[in-house]
Amino acid sequence: MAKAPSAKTPGLETSIQTLGAAKIPSPLRYGRYVGQDETLELRLTEEEADVSAGPGVPFKFEKAGPRGAMYFDSSKVKCAIVTCGGLCPGINDVIRAIVMDAHHNYNVASVIGIRYGLQGFIPKYGHDIIELTPKNVSNFHVFGGTELGSSRGPQAPDEIVDALERMNVNVLFMIGGDGTMKAAANIVREIQARKSRISVIGIPKTIDNDINFVGRSFGFDTAVEKATEAIACAHVEAVGAFNGIGVVKLMGRESGFIAAQATLALKEVNFVLVPESPFALDGPGGLLDQLEHRLSTRHHAVIVVAEGAGQHLCEASGRTDASGNPVLCDISSLLIARIKEHFKARAMEATIKFIDPSYIIRSVPANANDRVYCGFLGQNAVHAAMSGRTGMVVSRLQSRFVHVPLELVTMKRKKLNTASDYWRAVLESTGQEEMPQQG
Amino acid sequence: MAKAPSAKTPGLETSIQTLGAAKIPSPLRYGRYVGQDETLELRLTEEEADVSAGPGVPFKFEKAGPRGAMYFDSSKVKCAIVTCGGLCPGINDVIRAIVMDAHHNYNVASVIGIRYGLQGFIPKYGHDIIELTPKNVSNFHVFGGTELGSSRGPQAPDEIVDALERMNVNVLFMIGGDGTMKAAANIVREIQARKSRISVIGIPKTIDNDINFVGRSFGFDTAVEKATEAIACAHVEAVGAFNGIGVVKLMGRESGFIAAQATLALKEVNFVLVPESPFALDGPGGLLDQLEHRLSTRHHAVIVVAEGAGQHLCEASGRTDASGNPVLCDISSLLIARIKEHFKARAMEATIKFIDPSYIIRSVPANANDRVYCGFLGQNAVHAAMSGRTGMVVSRLQSRFVHVPLELVTMKRKKLNTASDYWRAVLESTGQEEMPQQG
Amino acid sequence: MAKAPSAKTPGLETSIQTLGAAKIPSPLRYGRYVGQDETLELRLTEEEADVSAGPGVPFKFEKAGPRGAMYFDSSKVKCAIVTCGGLCPGINDVIRAIVMDAHHNYNVASVIGIRYGLQGFIPKYGHDIIELTPKNVSNFHVFGGTELGSSRGPQAPDEIVDALERMNVNVLFMIGGDGTMKAAANIVREIQARKSRISVIGIPKTIDNDINFVGRSFGFDTAVEKATEAIACAHVEAVGAFNGIGVVKLMGRESGFIAAQATLALKEVNFVLVPESPFALDGPGGLLDQLEHRLSTRHHAVIVVAEGAGQHLCEASGRTDASGNPVLCDISSLLIARIKEHFKARAMEATIKFIDPSYIIRSVPANANDRVYCGFLGQNAVHAAMSGRTGMVVSRLQSRFVHVPLELVTMKRKKLNTASDYWRAVLESTGQEEMPQQG
Amino acid sequence: MAKAPSAKTPGLETSIQTLGAAKIPSPLRYGRYVGQDETLELRLTEEEADVSAGPGVPFKFEKAGPRGAMYFDSSKVKCAIVTCGGLCPGINDVIRAIVMDAHHNYNVASVIGIRYGLQGFIPKYGHDIIELTPKNVSNFHVFGGTELGSSRGPQAPDEIVDALERMNVNVLFMIGGDGTMKAAANIVREIQARKSRISVIGIPKTIDNDINFVGRSFGFDTAVEKATEAIACAHVEAVGAFNGIGVVKLMGRESGFIAAQATLALKEVNFVLVPESPFALDGPGGLLDQLEHRLSTRHHAVIVVAEGAGQHLCEASGRTDASGNPVLCDISSLLIARIKEHFKARAMEATIKFIDPSYIIRSVPANANDRVYCGFLGQNAVHAAMSGRTGMVVSRLQSRFVHVPLELVTMKRKKLNTASDYWRAVLESTGQEEMPQQG
Repeated sequence: MAKAPSAKTPGLETSIQTLGAAKIPSPLRYGRYVGQDETLELRLTEEEADVSAGPGVPFKFEKAGPRGAMYFDSSKVKCAIVTCGGLCPGINDVIRAIVMDAHHNYNVASVIGIRYGLQGFIPKYGHDIIELTPKNVSNFHVFGGTELGSSRGPQAPDEIVDALERMNVNVLFMIGGDGTMKAAANIVREIQARKSRISVIGIPKTIDNDINFVGRSFGFDTAVEKATEAIACAHVEAVGAFNGIGVVKLMGRESGFIAAQATLALKEVNFVLVPESPFALDGPGGLLDQLEHRLSTRHHAVIVVAEGAGQHLCEASGRTDASGNPVLCDISSLLIARIKEHFKARAMEATIKFIDPSYIIRSVPANANDRVYCGFLGQNAVHAAMSGRTGMVVSRLQSRFVHVPLELVTMKRKKLNTASDYWRAVLESTGQEEMPQQG
Repeated sequence: MAKAPSAKTPGLETSIQTLGAAKIPSPLRYGRYVGQDETLELRLTEEEADVSAGPGVPFKFEKAGPRGAMYFDSSKVKCAIVTCGGLCPGINDVIRAIVMDAHHNYNVASVIGIRYGLQGFIPKYGHDIIELTPKNVSNFHVFGGTELGSSRGPQAPDEIVDALERMNVNVLFMIGGDGTMKAAANIVREIQARKSRISVIGIPKTIDNDINFVGRSFGFDTAVEKATEAIACAHVEAVGAFNGIGVVKLMGRESGFIAAQATLALKEVNFVLVPESPFALDGPGGLLDQLEHRLSTRHHAVIVVAEGAGQHLCEASGRTDASGNPVLCDISSLLIARIKEHFKARAMEATIKFIDPSYIIRSVPANANDRVYCGFLGQNAVHAAMSGRTGMVVSRLQSRFVHVPLELVTMKRKKLNTASDYWRAVLESTGQEEMPQQG
Repeated sequence: MAKAPSAKTPGLETSIQTLGAAKIPSPLRYGRYVGQDETLELRLTEEEADVSAGPGVPFKFEKAGPRGAMYFDSSKVKCAIVTCGGLCPGINDVIRAIVMDAHHNYNVASVIGIRYGLQGFIPKYGHDIIELTPKNVSNFHVFGGTELGSSRGPQAPDEIVDALERMNVNVLFMIGGDGTMKAAANIVREIQARKSRISVIGIPKTIDNDINFVGRSFGFDTAVEKATEAIACAHVEAVGAFNGIGVVKLMGRESGFIAAQATLALKEVNFVLVPESPFALDGPGGLLDQLEHRLSTRHHAVIVVAEGAGQHLCEASGRTDASGNPVLCDISSLLIARIKEHFKARAMEATIKFIDPSYIIRSVPANANDRVYCGFLGQNAVHAAMSGRTGMVVSRLQSRFVHVPLELVTMKRKKLNTASDYWRAVLESTGQEEMPQQG
Repeated sequence: MAKAPSAKTPGLETSIQTLGAAKIPSPLRYGRYVGQDETLELRLTEEEADVSAGPGVPFKFEKAGPRGAMYFDSSKVKCAIVTCGGLCPGINDVIRAIVMDAHHNYNVASVIGIRYGLQGFIPKYGHDIIELTPKNVSNFHVFGGTELGSSRGPQAPDEIVDALERMNVNVLFMIGGDGTMKAAANIVREIQARKSRISVIGIPKTIDNDINFVGRSFGFDTAVEKATEAIACAHVEAVGAFNGIGVVKLMGRESGFIAAQATLALKEVNFVLVPESPFALDGPGGLLDQLEHRLSTRHHAVIVVAEGAGQHLCEASGRTDASGNPVLCDISSLLIARIKEHFKARAMEATIKFIDPSYIIRSVPANANDRVYCGFLGQNAVHAAMSGRTGMVVSRLQSRFVHVPLELVTMKRKKLNTASDYWRAVLESTGQEEMPQQG
């Protein structure tokens, strides 16, 4: 390895690992090259990164883009793509962009698709490999989900590197969430230990938009669009009954970005509940009290609840899922039960309609905005790989594409800042009062 | 009343009640009048009506449409509209069409909207009344649900007729399902007992498409369109995991029309389960066996289950809901539990994704096809009322609009004929084998 | 040929040609067979067929569906599919259904796709042939248009039959409009002259919905849905300017079905102009006069004009296009010019926005309703072919699928009956007055 | 006026005019106030601003947001909103946000809507005024266009200020394009000359995305989404014919942002033509040559052309429209004529389908992303006005909302930088070669 990772505690400069010196001229047809070590200084907002040094500290990131010199002789390169974790709009667009760019710009020897996430590297699962060509990926963007299949959970890094070596893969593109980026870091360590020459480039994927140092994760915009459709339905249901209450559960295990953004996009939400803002159900000013007031005056209400909200209200199961995430308690069921109980005790008529649109939100094809974004992510991932970068992800921050070390993006999850102008606008849009946090 | 209801046991002639002789010239601007007693002979298919006399017996129905002579002096008429039961695409289109036709064609004195279903007639609920004018209903079609609000369950017919008399209502349009049509019949009886002169016209609403003598209920087409979107998502989810299983629960308490039609519309469904076709879960050829075979060969599957399917597999609760319908057992939870158990016992990996899109399906605005249909239903309801008809519903059968006595539509619910070409095509589309009915 | 075509002048019985006796048992897995010569009596409405014998005369049609006995040994059959003329939603669904049914139900040897319409049969064009399999057509329904490509205009029947014989094709499915159905009849005659044993089955395609004896042509419903979106935009544009006029040109060379249905579906149209109803531009009660009145009182207006409307107002060019259809004069340009002139002369402000959505309407994928319909058309076409039928089309009339001889469907085009209840409802929806026909 | 406008030649600091000292405590319920003169330093990219000082020079902008102290006693304030120029998705969302924020946050006395653009101020047009309340704007976001109506062209500033004074308006919100922002500057000058105390706040609107110092104009994202639908149809049409050519004309008088972004979003475009990149039609490497090559190898092509592209190829008319913009020559007609001619001369079959979706693109309701954006624009416009700012617009740059002096945004139009990474990616997506600029 040419450089050791020097990602200091957040702040200042970030540095990207490379496999070695880039000496081979780039074959790009539409060339405007970025300088080999060109950087960009950005002062990040609280919505872009949660950093210990506090907001506003300037960061220097390496600029993404094609370099004039390559580390690999691209025409001899074999690439592999793997998709891990839950679905998210745009995965197929990223795959397509990687394949198109690798073939059309760099004329690579081959791009293969690993089936069903990290399982696809492990012989015992017996999954096949797909050769990905410009022809067979040309319609990928029409379909939601991942054409490669996915799976959750880790696999042994040494078995994965064994597989990469066995297949003569030079570049591995990993599309996945927090867990996948951590797995990527482990794979990079294993590759380094073997003094192997394989580049690992991450493209962070999270429908929750909670990856640190990623401005807005791909698919988020599409997810919000679909979420507003579900909220519109909840509103129609709420209005359609006397004291009708529409409850919509949205994704957001540890952060309420989708819930917040969808609330801003559709002005029909009266209460929005997110993990970052613990709330009281009972007592004056608690959710039930505010809801009762709303129904008494307006006779309908819409509640949007992120799946990770209100975990302080229910007992933790202590279990974790296949990806290692804690199993959340079912806040929406709790809410519904408590709301029913509350109005029954007051002999107030109230009708609750519950909508859980999660699989409908995450499995649709990307919208135009996300497609453009995914295209750039895929292209820049290929550029980074060909120039010999490794152990990094491609990210967009303040409309620019940059390289971010894996260490930074996996350090912690990004959360909504409930003291921000953004969250203030969300509350304003709902009209809900700040709720006491103990009840 | 001029005529007694003479709806004989299904077959032959149907006859419609009137309030009295129609002697006042009609003010219609775009006139082509239907003869006062003009009828139409139709041989109904099994998908249109479930009749004891068997399919193919010709029925004579009174034709819908404007008559040259009216019973009411329309310019002095006050109409009321009430919407009952669950939401369905197109309710607002029917309301809009009634208001527009009553005002523009018949120049009626007033159309009022009753709030929150039959509750709106009962003083103790304290709901207000809305004056409906061409201006304030002009955008109703843009919104799903019902702008009047709805509620479930019956109210005392005498209190309802008291309210109608108190408000000087001459014509009551009732938009609702099976229960509402039975309520309409009771209201008609009360009106007759009082020798009152109020016309009651029903517009049958059911997202399940299970009303007898209604070819395809309004909103059904829109519901199927939305259902296919959910199925498409289930397919994407199923394909995205190894041995992925997408389960979609669709409306259909006693009949599987939506499940069947959506299956035909989106060719990704592998198993469709409807109330009319009891199926075995266990044993050779049972659902679990077929599903295991499907996963072993194709590694993904989509199951569509109507909410009323497989009730023989779980114990009845004996309870009924506010509308008097039996509370169904939760077949989808049972299915999911049994599928998980089955594959766990076989140590086969299997991932289940469950989608319940019901509120998303029923609360969207109507599509173009349903809008045209709802427009004709509303107009013909007004025509029927002005000519003095009562105790009947407006229905479309074989592309014609006809009057059907309340007695006929409430006699029994329409069901899928599982011996029909239609159901055969559904099975063919899935590739599923006939399942043994005991397991 | 076993039977001579006996399609009498409209009325009574229709009879279908066959290649010979059906003696081979059918292999159908989901069997409920239709009787070999089973017929169905239908009294057609004016919207379904324009017949010289007048509406209401009962017709006997052969029922569509699988027969217990086949003429062909299906496992040895080679089928070909060709798509001709302009695009229409659902073509790919019909292709898909034919391929799926031929393979899955009848286990045919091969289905080939002819490229670019009838050109694909003619060696000089050099187009290739596509083998169509359940696998490669499985996603066809996701895409609009025709995956086979199309072309306009006739090719020599003997060259086509040469090609069929050279490729050993036993069954030819022709998806196309009026001209294509006439070409099909010529091909049948050529096959008969050669005493060849090739079945030719038509699936009538016309976005104008003007094929006689076809209740509603496939794709029509989708086209109307898209047309309403364009009309909604025209309405927004009209409202957005003082005396704003939105003009939308819709398909409809000789019949105004799309214009009429879209007008009923979206209640924002103030004037609808169709070929069947010649109208005066000038003079009292003419379009310009009514439009002026509308603007003076409401300050915005939406006009929907079928492309074939008002041809009496402009000089015929005398030319014909590649399909042999007369080149229409450009009524929308004429309208716009005359409207501008009219209001300029009166010094009335008026802003015209013109929308021509035709290619956007016809190239989208089919909606759920059309998909179900196309599925049945394709399946029934295969059933008809396997039983040895030829020289016929598959049609849906009053919710039933039937066989109709080519002679009947090509005799004349279906038109809107401007004296019908349907057209009355269209006028009522717009509020436009009957216009004098000379101006 | 408290401060003179000090907007220096681009670069460094921008300064915002105020009506006077802000001394009244703000009534905000969801308060986190921005410092009275808080600024933000941003280094703008070429896509955000075209500045003579060159890209990368840091700019200091005043931060948008609520201030703790107000200039106006908001409860006595009367606001007016006017919408000018062509339609664009999101106008109604901005109106709604202004009304909601003014009423709910600042409890203003009144917000009125001026009808039909600047005409609405001029008595001779006789347009009425609309009182805008939270209730009557609550559904505005459902509709495209502008509920206030619009018009093009200037009106005399003194007459406008007369009207403002006559109606006791304290704050005027102007939603419009380049011309409207220039009109706003004139109105501010007239107000200053009269020493009047009226605040004028602009919200820049342009579907072309060509306003300087505005990162991405509202509605642009929605417009691109709709544009891709038209391109998808053009692709289907192109593929549906042998040597099919789909031509789509998109908005973009002087800048090709929509064309470029839509090309990136839908990977089916083969040639994209924008005003910023003059191209040769003829000669080697010219458009016709490249198109011929494409058809010879792939047999279909999609061309996207911005309306202002290729103006060097046709003679300027010298005329201007009502807004003072030069009337463009019709490049799409020229293109189509020359393409037909070219292939006719070569006896190559070629079928051209032309789609002009402009009114369909600009009149749809905003998507979720644009709705959120419009909400912030409206809120920040109200905040700016209440604190006494004037002569400025609200803009989003690099995810932050800032105040920009009218002088800066009207100085020149923003254009695509054809040397940028962005444009390179566009070309790469099409595969088109750089064209010679003289042909």
